[in-house]
Amino acid sequence: MTAVTAHIGMSLDGFAAGPHQSARNPVGVGGMRLHEWLLGTRAWCEHRGLEGGEESADSDVLADAMHGIGAYIMGRGMFGGGDGPWDSAWRGWWGDEPAFRAPVFVLTHHPREPLEMKGGTTFTFVTDGIESALDQARAAADGRDVSLAGGAKVVQQYLAAGLLDELTLHLRPILLGAGERLLENAGNPVLEPRKVVSTGLATHITYRVVR
Amino acid sequence: MTAVTAHIGMSLDGFAAGPHQSARNPVGVGGMRLHEWLLGTRAWCEHRGLEGGEESADSDVLADAMHGIGAYIMGRGMFGGGDGPWDSAWRGWWGDEPAFRAPVFVLTHHPREPLEMKGGTTFTFVTDGIESALDQARAAADGRDVSLAGGAKVVQQYLAAGLLDELTLHLRPILLGAGERLLENAGNPVLEPRKVVSTGLATHITYRVVR
Repeated sequence: MTAVTAHIGMSLDGFAAGPHQSARNPVGVGGMRLHEWLLGTRAWCEHRGLEGGEESADSDVLADAMHGIGAYIMGRGMFGGGDGPWDSAWRGWWGDEPAFRAPVFVLTHHPREPLEMKGGTTFTFVTDGIESALDQARAAADGRDVSLAGGAKVVQQYLAAGLLDELTLHLRPILLGAGERLLENAGNPVLEPRKVVSTGLATHITYRVVR
Repeated sequence: MTAVTAHIGMSLDGFAAGPHQSARNPVGVGGMRLHEWLLGTRAWCEHRGLEGGEESADSDVLADAMHGIGAYIMGRGMFGGGDGPWDSAWRGWWGDEPAFRAPVFVLTHHPREPLEMKGGTTFTFVTDGIESALDQARAAADGRDVSLAGGAKVVQQYLAAGLLDELTLHLRPILLGAGERLLENAGNPVLEPRKVVSTGLATHITYRVVR
């Protein structure tokens, strides 16, 4: 059975990205601090096809987070997008060989032909809403999970619509002070903490969203 | 050696109180949801001089939080205060026999004589700032810890001033959507997660504030 999951970095003051996000910097100023827990891990290096990295509890969390995902959904900002019609020369923020290696459905108001990247990632642009994107992602995932790859507004929309099954917060012990808040406009979901792994770099909390 | 600690309930969206706080309702509308994890515990009942309550991980967390504290510091709002000069008939929000059973230093802009309550709690009103309140609390604590009893602004001020040693968040899996934010205007402290206890009702995370 396909579950809809999300794994999102959040600062202790509730931000999922720093201020001044742009097409070339979707995480915003200082936003990479949210993700520092994963950059040195063995799982990350392996995923990027690199040697090295540290075997650690953080690495295990990341490996779990990437395991069993058949398709992703992301917002246009996370693809690297801006607001207006597409510049067809712009192939997103993730490089020629994005690390998803799976179908990715990008929510946008502007139609665009699918982009097939190296390494198994295809970006498909969806203009008819979050339920359509989820239907397409479920079909593509073929029984595996669908993961929301962010940003914050995508998580908010699926939470508010009751379409998210599981939310994992990678809670970083930092204050960003400004940026994009993760958990606003998300309705009033009932969440149950199901699993917690804490390291010096982050407290990883998995919540089940109760129907 | 006296440590300065704080134990504060926070919603997943970062609020330490609901909206519409007042002298008679310092936790704000819906704010009691932040504290539901503790109300049914054995430690809480025992502290209030009541029978019953459940022995549980939450109860152990609460017992730890109340252990070894020699004095408290709180804001006027948490005492139950409003803004203007004092109404001398108003003896605060905590009843005739407050559960602190220790000296409590209340930060305020308006002088007032100390209030001696039943059961060992004395409220002393401090008008010359957070460092003075801390000096007085340390002296009264006589080697035991000083605990910040809230509200949010008190925690913020001591964090920003580098005077807090340890912060425990009782992170409730709820979204309040509005209210008083805990971790704004708190500077850019370096926090290290040291201990985590997670239950179905809350994830209790203790951070050391690195100097």
